[in-house]
Amino acid sequence: MIILLKDKVNENQVKNLTNWLEGNGFGLHISKGQNHTIIGLIGDTSRVDMDLIASLDIVETVKRIQEPFKSANRKFHEDDSVIDCGGVKIGGGNFQIIAGPCSVETRDQIIDVARAVKASGAGMLRGGAFKPRTSPYAFQGLHEKGLELLSEAKKATGLPIVTEIMEANHLPLFEDVDVIQVGARNMQNFELLKELGQTRKTILLKRGLANTLEELLMSAEYIMAGGNNNVILCERGIRTFETYTRNTLDLSAVPVLRRLTHLPVVVDPSHGTGHAYLVQSMAMAATVAGADGLIIEVHNDPPHALCDGKQSLTPEQFDALAKGIRNVLPFAVR
Amino acid sequence: MIILLKDKVNENQVKNLTNWLEGNGFGLHISKGQNHTIIGLIGDTSRVDMDLIASLDIVETVKRIQEPFKSANRKFHEDDSVIDCGGVKIGGGNFQIIAGPCSVETRDQIIDVARAVKASGAGMLRGGAFKPRTSPYAFQGLHEKGLELLSEAKKATGLPIVTEIMEANHLPLFEDVDVIQVGARNMQNFELLKELGQTRKTILLKRGLANTLEELLMSAEYIMAGGNNNVILCERGIRTFETYTRNTLDLSAVPVLRRLTHLPVVVDPSHGTGHAYLVQSMAMAATVAGADGLIIEVHNDPPHALCDGKQSLTPEQFDALAKGIRNVLPFAVR
Amino acid sequence: MIILLKDKVNENQVKNLTNWLEGNGFGLHISKGQNHTIIGLIGDTSRVDMDLIASLDIVETVKRIQEPFKSANRKFHEDDSVIDCGGVKIGGGNFQIIAGPCSVETRDQIIDVARAVKASGAGMLRGGAFKPRTSPYAFQGLHEKGLELLSEAKKATGLPIVTEIMEANHLPLFEDVDVIQVGARNMQNFELLKELGQTRKTILLKRGLANTLEELLMSAEYIMAGGNNNVILCERGIRTFETYTRNTLDLSAVPVLRRLTHLPVVVDPSHGTGHAYLVQSMAMAATVAGADGLIIEVHNDPPHALCDGKQSLTPEQFDALAKGIRNVLPFAVR
Amino acid sequence: MIILLKDKVNENQVKNLTNWLEGNGFGLHISKGQNHTIIGLIGDTSRVDMDLIASLDIVETVKRIQEPFKSANRKFHEDDSVIDCGGVKIGGGNFQIIAGPCSVETRDQIIDVARAVKASGAGMLRGGAFKPRTSPYAFQGLHEKGLELLSEAKKATGLPIVTEIMEANHLPLFEDVDVIQVGARNMQNFELLKELGQTRKTILLKRGLANTLEELLMSAEYIMAGGNNNVILCERGIRTFETYTRNTLDLSAVPVLRRLTHLPVVVDPSHGTGHAYLVQSMAMAATVAGADGLIIEVHNDPPHALCDGKQSLTPEQFDALAKGIRNVLPFAVR
Repeated sequence: MIILLKDKVNENQVKNLTNWLEGNGFGLHISKGQNHTIIGLIGDTSRVDMDLIASLDIVETVKRIQEPFKSANRKFHEDDSVIDCGGVKIGGGNFQIIAGPCSVETRDQIIDVARAVKASGAGMLRGGAFKPRTSPYAFQGLHEKGLELLSEAKKATGLPIVTEIMEANHLPLFEDVDVIQVGARNMQNFELLKELGQTRKTILLKRGLANTLEELLMSAEYIMAGGNNNVILCERGIRTFETYTRNTLDLSAVPVLRRLTHLPVVVDPSHGTGHAYLVQSMAMAATVAGADGLIIEVHNDPPHALCDGKQSLTPEQFDALAKGIRNVLPFAVR
Repeated sequence: MIILLKDKVNENQVKNLTNWLEGNGFGLHISKGQNHTIIGLIGDTSRVDMDLIASLDIVETVKRIQEPFKSANRKFHEDDSVIDCGGVKIGGGNFQIIAGPCSVETRDQIIDVARAVKASGAGMLRGGAFKPRTSPYAFQGLHEKGLELLSEAKKATGLPIVTEIMEANHLPLFEDVDVIQVGARNMQNFELLKELGQTRKTILLKRGLANTLEELLMSAEYIMAGGNNNVILCERGIRTFETYTRNTLDLSAVPVLRRLTHLPVVVDPSHGTGHAYLVQSMAMAATVAGADGLIIEVHNDPPHALCDGKQSLTPEQFDALAKGIRNVLPFAVR
Repeated sequence: MIILLKDKVNENQVKNLTNWLEGNGFGLHISKGQNHTIIGLIGDTSRVDMDLIASLDIVETVKRIQEPFKSANRKFHEDDSVIDCGGVKIGGGNFQIIAGPCSVETRDQIIDVARAVKASGAGMLRGGAFKPRTSPYAFQGLHEKGLELLSEAKKATGLPIVTEIMEANHLPLFEDVDVIQVGARNMQNFELLKELGQTRKTILLKRGLANTLEELLMSAEYIMAGGNNNVILCERGIRTFETYTRNTLDLSAVPVLRRLTHLPVVVDPSHGTGHAYLVQSMAMAATVAGADGLIIEVHNDPPHALCDGKQSLTPEQFDALAKGIRNVLPFAVR
Repeated sequence: MIILLKDKVNENQVKNLTNWLEGNGFGLHISKGQNHTIIGLIGDTSRVDMDLIASLDIVETVKRIQEPFKSANRKFHEDDSVIDCGGVKIGGGNFQIIAGPCSVETRDQIIDVARAVKASGAGMLRGGAFKPRTSPYAFQGLHEKGLELLSEAKKATGLPIVTEIMEANHLPLFEDVDVIQVGARNMQNFELLKELGQTRKTILLKRGLANTLEELLMSAEYIMAGGNNNVILCERGIRTFETYTRNTLDLSAVPVLRRLTHLPVVVDPSHGTGHAYLVQSMAMAATVAGADGLIIEVHNDPPHALCDGKQSLTPEQFDALAKGIRNVLPFAVR
């Protein structure tokens, strides 16, 4: 971290600052120019409150050199992390497709979809039991009942299950869940992240609607700071001004994240575009761009889905998509 | 709500849809044009899942006419709501300034600031005990200890206290808190909103970083749907591409919200701009634009504040601001 | 187009509106509901000023059903357009890579790069002679001299040339240019678009920094309305909050545009990401997503490039990229 | 400017860089730390191509200390600029309201509106003759005829006239125009800016839809670099995700710009909000925030306006607005 002081600062104030920094365990490298004094901090600056320093009277600006995330940083963990998801591995060359309906609706629906996506090559089953909805009057999911049906589908097919949590108090209900998803709207629900950091469950962390990749990594850091390193990152589209798509899928997030972190990165082209007709092309593009996996909405009866039907594939469409993925996977840039 | 069907739809499918809509209690007004069929829904469409209908095979597009929020809607509650905040009223012509430090740090700090802002005309005291921070390594607030110090400051000055909650489990600690703040990052933490809807506490709901005003109102609706009508809305700046300010304060939110809802609207120019030198002009502009109140960061020693010092005013600056507000309040557009 | 009138409107006002619409040559389909009257317009509504109608006193809202663009619309031109670029074809299955330096600097530079990219499989040469720069003090290109050097490179290699225009007055200088590029900042320079519509030159139209795809298509429509149908669209990244990339490349633009229009769509991953290390993965992803071509910055000495060196590939890197493209092109989703 | 070099750089490369910088006339202050070398540039860095330096192999990052704009910079011109607009002054305490219709339509319309707004206190008349429209099929203005009608209105009332230019070739038609407006979509039409820099006309430069304030100032710099210092800046709303307003008016732009530059700053609440009901509150808020003037759309028959009727005030509404402005102007924060 480099601290640039203002023109003509008082020597005492500078002394106070440098004493305080040294007291916090940093080595300092001070350089006095004609107009400006520059202080370089040596040590682990991820623990420095950059805003606090920037707010000091004598400071013109502060510039980080190191990234503010540490456990997630590839600099300190060169190899790809391989994360276990109920017996299925993801990362480090293990590519997985997670598929299933937006919401769990009935026993038949979830088991039928699970069988179909497994037959087409999916490695995990997704399905929502707790659904975050903008309106309190919209369908909010089957809750406990939904989790039970997911467990039945897991028993029937052997597929590990992925489903979203919305509150830490619900954790006891998630015992049989293999991968706990944190949705976009909870990416900065820091209390939830802290409590998930206390578990050893695998967490699938989705990027927030208007969040940067650094903020996504800082949220992963919240989980890892608690000792839980089983984190998968998910690009699911960001809010932009475009209206033909529900969100704008940021595929450059894949190679950027792969450079910055050792954690696996998956892509959700269903939420990321909001339209079934865009899912296959974006899924294949994500694969070629180096993603470690995909999350795809599949429904046996999209027009009757209780939520997000517009973006769901039929099992037949999913089968074609899975074939397309196998075609391009050997050429993925990694 | 108007549902526009696609060209050349199958009569049976239309029949299925209209039966289902009627079964859900809606009156229908059907109009067949040369190419398109239009269905008008009569009844309370705030309870309709618009996305579900839009996803149906035969539907081209759906257009809401009514707003999707109901309890918060001024159409059904013409008069301004007046909300009680521990004996102080806000809304319906009651203008309030809420002032205090970003974080509670020490007994002396919070009591000194409370006395100063009261003397200058503040009606409530703010101070953070639980702080949402992007980094797990940044200062997170004094927690219970912070709440205790706020209570002491309340006892010492008589000012009602406003402070942020980050998890529903913490509610028992907030008994003595007069106004519970939901921060921008939790605006769509729907489980938290639902639990706050079960209390009768006054809730100050901040707009999310990249959320629309309709989404803000839908989040208010989550609280009100639980029976708690004591909601104050807060504009605190949105994320834009501008870099000279921390956020972009959207002052048009004030007259827009005042038209759409009966709930009081307050503005936070401290977080909304991120710089002390911008607070007075934006506070006065917000007042003239018709806000019901302001939230202002005041610190007795801004350069040493443990967070957000850059945007805090000194008590002297706050006193000048309060005078400015009194000058323009009579001319506010309401 | 559907016009929804307000509750309780005056019959005379409705009569005035319907007369005026009929006078403008539209057929009307009027439907009176319990509360609302709906007017459906039959005819070519791309020529209707939707804002004007929305502004009328008696109108609640207006909803387009047809897209507002017509010449560019795939509905009226089902087959892909194949556009000639100085003898090289693009679109309708003809995939092209356009490569070359950001700026033309010297004869040796541009001829060396042209030979190298041709050898690797590029179909056209790009190079900037007029450079739009945020600062008036930054390098603005070699102007006429740059165009001459491009012509020499064309003679030396046979590659058609692509270069940017910034003002219609410069058109006489562009005689030997095969494809005239309109940059992102000029996407809504409507006077320039109109004058390019009067030529029969092939125009490569880049999407603006914060523009929607509909706005891009409306700008194409400006050119086509003048009678020039030789338009290629280019996705080059949009402005978002992300900071690890210079822009956010919106690859879903490719399948969306391919559905909406018959015009070829190319992708610029160099400007779209701003970093050389991201170009190959995004170029391959764009190809798989169905793009008709790519624009890639290649420089024989990136660290000394006079502009945008950070995102340029070396000829060796470009050769590897071109091989990667050939690998995945057969699997492109189209 | 501070250049931070990468870890372990080759001494020769550093020598090359420092020689090149010194050859460009900069004094250097070099500081070698344990890991990093920092080079401070002394001299006029507004002329440095920061991107070029950032792209060099050995450079980790570059940080500006000085702003990249110079002629517009308040640091080198402490006093407010007072700009002449056909005899009327703006800036330095001279507050002006510019009012008139979006488009000039007929002689009666423009003269009637001019008389009405003059009677209410407007200091200048606005009216569009060349209209930038997203669609080539929308009304584009009366062109030369519109300019003639504006001149007649000027003769009839004595009000200086403000109108938009869309292409430098049209300049000869603008002889009688007192203030030439550059619209949001042309803010980065650099060729147009350069040619306006060659005139001595007063230019009203509007902020682009998604541009930062620094970019706005760099565009002003283009005009001033040609020797024309008669520039007025205009905040007119930026594109955000909000849908209840057409744009989001960024009122913090007023105090931010007043700190950064000596040029006058005006605010356009009509385009900035898109709705007549929001204009008065935002106009008054802008005034209190310290604006040097306002641009307000006024039409004698808003529902029949050929464009932007939705946001126009009637002359009566404008008269009330002007009274409101006079009430709060004495309290403006400046």
